[in-house]
Amino acid sequence: MTRALSDADFATSPEERGFEDYHVGAVYEFGHLTMDQDRLLEFAREFDPQPMHADPVFADAGPYAGLIASGWHTGAILLRLYVDHYLPHGAASLGSPGMDELRWPAPVRPGDLLRLRVEIVETKRSRSKPDRGLVIAKTELLNQNDKIVFSASIMNLIMMRDPSAG
Amino acid sequence: MTRALSDADFATSPEERGFEDYHVGAVYEFGHLTMDQDRLLEFAREFDPQPMHADPVFADAGPYAGLIASGWHTGAILLRLYVDHYLPHGAASLGSPGMDELRWPAPVRPGDLLRLRVEIVETKRSRSKPDRGLVIAKTELLNQNDKIVFSASIMNLIMMRDPSAG
Repeated sequence: MTRALSDADFATSPEERGFEDYHVGAVYEFGHLTMDQDRLLEFAREFDPQPMHADPVFADAGPYAGLIASGWHTGAILLRLYVDHYLPHGAASLGSPGMDELRWPAPVRPGDLLRLRVEIVETKRSRSKPDRGLVIAKTELLNQNDKIVFSASIMNLIMMRDPSAG
Repeated sequence: MTRALSDADFATSPEERGFEDYHVGAVYEFGHLTMDQDRLLEFAREFDPQPMHADPVFADAGPYAGLIASGWHTGAILLRLYVDHYLPHGAASLGSPGMDELRWPAPVRPGDLLRLRVEIVETKRSRSKPDRGLVIAKTELLNQNDKIVFSASIMNLIMMRDPSAG
């Protein structure tokens, strides 16, 4: 079971969380999830069958000197921590318009222990639909050596807890 | 088996393709892959267990009036077409530094038939490592109604076929 990794956490549970709970400057960490080698190979063979991800023999002789995860698999692990701990659960999470500046600065290898760091950088209540707002978070996935292996600015539309608030 | 959907295709097969084969302005389409409902639910339950993706009963009553795929699953399907048809196979594909302006303009539903459109927008041979170059492609995934369901600018590092070329 993953969990908040520092004293800093939201004041409300994911079940009751709404747009009002997202404050610019807040920083949270959640984890950990492990990159499992069998799952790494399965994911790669389904979605990203490049030999550096899907073929251990090729990968050992390749530029990364060993198997590395598809960057998309790395992002999927970040997503799981983000959904479990950061987004509201249930109807208040209205989906994501997109992400910006997605980067993979270092590879993920089998057995790596990964944690999410998320910093809220912008919140904008919608003018046309004042029952919701846009939240932008700088997200990073870090490995056990504190290296960033994934980063992106993720946008989410989130319902207000109290849509009648001024 | 997916395939090139128009007469336009690379002059070289993925096995022999290198940086020299990527030309600014070239546009290719490849497909199709179908979003399977069982796989949609499995993917969501593993990586993105929001009820609009993972709970058909919730989803039917929710804002999208039915189950929609995790945007990350949609991206994984684009990735598969991109790897099969656009990237070099084997050692010439050196990985991706990242993506920019990733957007999900419309949802993907079970049964949707998806195709990739890719337009090469920039190529830069590396000065520090002249055996390779960076290629940037505007990628879009479209559904059977020609709606764009995913778009992003994807960067890839690709080896030269002939590293000694001037």
